[in-house]
Amino acid sequence: MTAANPNAPPPSPVRLSAVHGPGQPEPSEALERLYRGFERELLVPLWTEIGDLMPRHPRSKASPHLWRWDRLVELASEAGRIVPVGRGGERRAIALANPSLGGRPFATPTLWAAIQYLMPGEDAPEHRHTQHAFRFVVEGEGVWTVVNGDPVRMSRGDFLPQAGWNWHAHHNAATEPMAWIDGLDIPFSYYTESQFFEVGRERIGAAEKSTPERSRSERLWGHPGLRPLSQPDSPSATPLLAYRWVDTDRALADQLALEQEGHQVTLSPGHAAVRFTNPSTGGDVMPTIRCEMHRLRAGAESRVRREVGSSVFQVFDGTGTVTVGEREWEVARGDMFVVPSWAPFTARASRDVPGLDLFRFGDAPIFEALHAHRMQIGEVGA
Amino acid sequence: MTAANPNAPPPSPVRLSAVHGPGQPEPSEALERLYRGFERELLVPLWTEIGDLMPRHPRSKASPHLWRWDRLVELASEAGRIVPVGRGGERRAIALANPSLGGRPFATPTLWAAIQYLMPGEDAPEHRHTQHAFRFVVEGEGVWTVVNGDPVRMSRGDFLPQAGWNWHAHHNAATEPMAWIDGLDIPFSYYTESQFFEVGRERIGAAEKSTPERSRSERLWGHPGLRPLSQPDSPSATPLLAYRWVDTDRALADQLALEQEGHQVTLSPGHAAVRFTNPSTGGDVMPTIRCEMHRLRAGAESRVRREVGSSVFQVFDGTGTVTVGEREWEVARGDMFVVPSWAPFTARASRDVPGLDLFRFGDAPIFEALHAHRMQIGEVGA
Amino acid sequence: MTAANPNAPPPSPVRLSAVHGPGQPEPSEALERLYRGFERELLVPLWTEIGDLMPRHPRSKASPHLWRWDRLVELASEAGRIVPVGRGGERRAIALANPSLGGRPFATPTLWAAIQYLMPGEDAPEHRHTQHAFRFVVEGEGVWTVVNGDPVRMSRGDFLPQAGWNWHAHHNAATEPMAWIDGLDIPFSYYTESQFFEVGRERIGAAEKSTPERSRSERLWGHPGLRPLSQPDSPSATPLLAYRWVDTDRALADQLALEQEGHQVTLSPGHAAVRFTNPSTGGDVMPTIRCEMHRLRAGAESRVRREVGSSVFQVFDGTGTVTVGEREWEVARGDMFVVPSWAPFTARASRDVPGLDLFRFGDAPIFEALHAHRMQIGEVGA
Amino acid sequence: MTAANPNAPPPSPVRLSAVHGPGQPEPSEALERLYRGFERELLVPLWTEIGDLMPRHPRSKASPHLWRWDRLVELASEAGRIVPVGRGGERRAIALANPSLGGRPFATPTLWAAIQYLMPGEDAPEHRHTQHAFRFVVEGEGVWTVVNGDPVRMSRGDFLPQAGWNWHAHHNAATEPMAWIDGLDIPFSYYTESQFFEVGRERIGAAEKSTPERSRSERLWGHPGLRPLSQPDSPSATPLLAYRWVDTDRALADQLALEQEGHQVTLSPGHAAVRFTNPSTGGDVMPTIRCEMHRLRAGAESRVRREVGSSVFQVFDGTGTVTVGEREWEVARGDMFVVPSWAPFTARASRDVPGLDLFRFGDAPIFEALHAHRMQIGEVGA
Repeated sequence: MTAANPNAPPPSPVRLSAVHGPGQPEPSEALERLYRGFERELLVPLWTEIGDLMPRHPRSKASPHLWRWDRLVELASEAGRIVPVGRGGERRAIALANPSLGGRPFATPTLWAAIQYLMPGEDAPEHRHTQHAFRFVVEGEGVWTVVNGDPVRMSRGDFLPQAGWNWHAHHNAATEPMAWIDGLDIPFSYYTESQFFEVGRERIGAAEKSTPERSRSERLWGHPGLRPLSQPDSPSATPLLAYRWVDTDRALADQLALEQEGHQVTLSPGHAAVRFTNPSTGGDVMPTIRCEMHRLRAGAESRVRREVGSSVFQVFDGTGTVTVGEREWEVARGDMFVVPSWAPFTARASRDVPGLDLFRFGDAPIFEALHAHRMQIGEVGA
Repeated sequence: MTAANPNAPPPSPVRLSAVHGPGQPEPSEALERLYRGFERELLVPLWTEIGDLMPRHPRSKASPHLWRWDRLVELASEAGRIVPVGRGGERRAIALANPSLGGRPFATPTLWAAIQYLMPGEDAPEHRHTQHAFRFVVEGEGVWTVVNGDPVRMSRGDFLPQAGWNWHAHHNAATEPMAWIDGLDIPFSYYTESQFFEVGRERIGAAEKSTPERSRSERLWGHPGLRPLSQPDSPSATPLLAYRWVDTDRALADQLALEQEGHQVTLSPGHAAVRFTNPSTGGDVMPTIRCEMHRLRAGAESRVRREVGSSVFQVFDGTGTVTVGEREWEVARGDMFVVPSWAPFTARASRDVPGLDLFRFGDAPIFEALHAHRMQIGEVGA
Repeated sequence: MTAANPNAPPPSPVRLSAVHGPGQPEPSEALERLYRGFERELLVPLWTEIGDLMPRHPRSKASPHLWRWDRLVELASEAGRIVPVGRGGERRAIALANPSLGGRPFATPTLWAAIQYLMPGEDAPEHRHTQHAFRFVVEGEGVWTVVNGDPVRMSRGDFLPQAGWNWHAHHNAATEPMAWIDGLDIPFSYYTESQFFEVGRERIGAAEKSTPERSRSERLWGHPGLRPLSQPDSPSATPLLAYRWVDTDRALADQLALEQEGHQVTLSPGHAAVRFTNPSTGGDVMPTIRCEMHRLRAGAESRVRREVGSSVFQVFDGTGTVTVGEREWEVARGDMFVVPSWAPFTARASRDVPGLDLFRFGDAPIFEALHAHRMQIGEVGA
Repeated sequence: MTAANPNAPPPSPVRLSAVHGPGQPEPSEALERLYRGFERELLVPLWTEIGDLMPRHPRSKASPHLWRWDRLVELASEAGRIVPVGRGGERRAIALANPSLGGRPFATPTLWAAIQYLMPGEDAPEHRHTQHAFRFVVEGEGVWTVVNGDPVRMSRGDFLPQAGWNWHAHHNAATEPMAWIDGLDIPFSYYTESQFFEVGRERIGAAEKSTPERSRSERLWGHPGLRPLSQPDSPSATPLLAYRWVDTDRALADQLALEQEGHQVTLSPGHAAVRFTNPSTGGDVMPTIRCEMHRLRAGAESRVRREVGSSVFQVFDGTGTVTVGEREWEVARGDMFVVPSWAPFTARASRDVPGLDLFRFGDAPIFEALHAHRMQIGEVGA
């Protein structure tokens, strides 16, 4: 015999086995012949797949999982020492890889979550991409992110959205390294194959390396209930590039104080929450990612909830206990965890701290836009 | 040596190798240690993945591929003989499995396309699911699909949308088998984990087995430019359950006739096209699937186009040549083929036929809803 | 006595009188001085006006009123003999003047309704205006309205919208005069001062004087549930220029037949109704005018309803009794009547006719767009 | 002579005269008979009215006019002495009556503008109405407006929207009288007959008479880019009840500073402007009224503009010159003036003041919602 025919078609990736079970045809020789025909013609019947493809409710491939902040920072810091930042790799970002998503850098099937680390004086080069991104700062300061030439300060508690297709670079203007988290819709873009990317200038200009307290975007758009007449609408992405902790903290404190005064303004007793919004629409900051900050008063517990779509949380402050499906963890500052689609979630603040502050991002805007969102609060069925 | 510790954590799915390349850190012992740390902690750096995850433009994992109708019908017919239809398997549907999507029954990363086959007298049991679906009939007749109790006739050329969460069953009221194609957003729902499913009654009622020429939905919603005052809005799904070939054909013929009379109403010379729309909104029939019928006059060629998102085509009538990326096929009635995201596409009708009619469905509404749609027509860059 | 000072300010239009009543200040000399001061400074206090300006619910200045079709036609026909049609006067249109709106040609505070009349061979010159308009044909045929160069046939039962800023002319291609009704938002534009007008060509081209059975707009947009891919969205106005009686009649007949078969698809027993819609949005044909056709089966009576905003009705066929507030009339083909804002309305078809067909147009889209719409059906309070 | 027949119909309000002119039929006996027929049947032809009803562009019935603040305050203060506030009259509000709108309390055909005045310790009783309202405070403080039980402080520079159908009362908690201006859409509601009104409690509760620095609405909704998760959407009206001067002032100052730094963020050199928006939608605070604050740097002049719809301005600070159509005035704090539909408008700040701050409200949202808005900036044709 001779070498394989180079013109032969590649072997079919389809593999079908006749099995016993409800809704399955009886195994037989004829069935085997049929399945071989399916394989040859690149066909797969519904009846062998329906249980996996069409479950009664979402059964996530992702697992609940927790990453400890000290371990993230330790490894990021080590990367800071030995991995340079520059064109090609683009960013010193290290992503959470959900343990049941095959080793891919996907926190959930739709969301990317990473720790990014920048050494003193370092620059991350300019680029832009259609993936939507944000930064959230759990500790530290000293880095400015430069978005379309507008330098934006990053400090503890700040939320910095960076909607798709904006040019951006980062530079550390301080004498200490700085770490923060990035959230993006990379897995969603990857599965749906809708992503574009462009490299920018090798170096940003000197003026863009300035370190103003407030970015231009904040000076234009950061005034409550006011919009600048000169600026166009921005339905696909928020024009406000920084949401400062001083505002977020005050909004949460106001809700808890109003609750104390007898007004029903919390999600449940002791549970305040705000959503970061696009001031030009009132909607989510980005078309695919919803970002929120939650605060539980000492000892308070959130109502159990589950919803279509997945979320990633980071503990911003305090300590407490979180429950995701069958898993439960004690959590502290910086810890990150994943809530898969339709998994029940609750959080409880410790009694001996002022409270528990949780930053959350999730993919709910995708499902709302497509009329596919569902949520259960307070009681979640089987 | 002893048995494995049953309490040991499962091995990490993350595997990282230091490699040489632009943007990659120099391989070193320290880097190896770092990568082992990443694996242990379920972390993956961006710099090893960015080329795959963030390409310059969509590079689809799916391949252009063609399935011949006669082969589909032959296998479906064989399945009709040996595979029963009933609860559990639910439908005798056989799906196209794109050759580069790992043997999964996914025509593209977001779309399911299948041939469904029903023998004389057979019933497919009632169920409902959040996945959006439609039927398109390239030949035959005799089956009624019963949607929320409304029997809808299926005949050659008819398009029958079935938006998510409507109860539906099928029954073949004729003496011949019947085949048609189903399109759904199963892969999209599967990746994004947003699907719900319920089984319905074991048998639909006698009245629902009637075989009216027109469904109730058509009698209510099938009048051009008119809406029934008694019916609520239906933004998430079209309330019209059948789009008849007589209307589609006439609309396409009208466009070509108007073009002949000197009016610019075609997409390009000799290329007429209509979209199936939700009469209560004017938008797409379903939130995730766009459906269209295209007609090329004999010898006419469409302008090359590519867009974010994928499509599946079926030849409804005529013959011609279609080009998808690097592939080119001669096509005839019933043949189905796939256009992956951002792959250039053109079609040309043969000169010796009246024309080429192409049914198309795609996932563009997803990207439009999320402000992520892009399209190039006429000239497509590198 | 001397001549009036030509430089003196014009006398103030404000006139105030102290009166006795709840919420009114006691008449006094000081009050008189205050009121003279108000007059001088062009000021009016709320307290003397609030009863008129801020009633408990709308109290229309317009009256219910009926115009008999035979009288309208007789006078229009007489105008046909002695009043030419041409530039300046523009149209031989004769408007209903609500008896309590001061002799202005306003059927209601927002709506214009007129009979238009064109003699054999006559042309009405081309112009365009931002006021939205439509034609409805209660009898006759032979006129084509030419909209942006597209000749549109007008026949009994046809509804022909003509959204603002489209060029249009009319020509009578037949040997008989023809009458029809025009509806516009002239009073609304007049009060809100938002109107623009331009004269067009003195004569339309020969090709535009052709008399096709179907207009180009119908060939593009008149297919149920289908939209032409080549045409842009048209959110502010329907692109479909004719809604034919054959379709309207069939839609109404279908509803009554479905009701007979046991389905709840009518507004109330024996009361079918359709709305004319923009096929590119599913919404109203024009931003300010809603148009509908109602059919009451012999002997059926509509549920009483009242709503914010006014309507004008024309009897298209049959006979019956209509009640508007305190007024009640026996009506027959062509009769027109007005339902003021918040006035209760019911209609009842005679028992000895097949039914009563009522064409209706109203201003509800204005209030819906401004979140100001309210409606009561079935029981209307004091 | 005999007594009038009590059953005779009332005399027709229609009066028609045959006139000479373009587009007019030749006067004749037949025409006179026709016109008498029209009068009898309550009909008016288009050809005698078209010039008034369908002008080439809006020709406002309203006049440009200026009211001096000192005269308004003087008369309001006098009213404070002799006109009580209470149920029936409801408010001590004194409205601007445009000199060419027949003595009605209408600043423009759609807008009401009034000075309201409350004596120390006085209450204005609770009521609600569908008319949309706001308060703007050009000077003074000490009054709280209580909206749905939420006391809202009023101080110089504050803008306080009060969308339709919210319960509201006012109380003066200080030892001085206070004046402010009210803006409403009363004329628009009046012409379109869409208004509802309800009286509320005779006295508001003691807790509602508290005088908090910040209202509950501000504590919930007054944080930039943040929304409370517990609160529903509010598309028809802003949930934020006070826009504080400190924010408005800072936003305007930021724009001028950014301009100085070389960024194009002003409407034209030296002209900063913000719009008050609904934080839950990013759109106008109310469906019918747009509110803005404009700031001209010393010596700067705005670009001439005209638009469909009318506006009322109040000078908040500084001095300057404003031009409206043919009129020009020197203006100072508190002065109010009217810009009719389509009248060209410019403002110029004096050179010897820090600048000119102008508060503006207008009816543009009505026209935008109805696709009828038009604007010209920079050059306005004949």
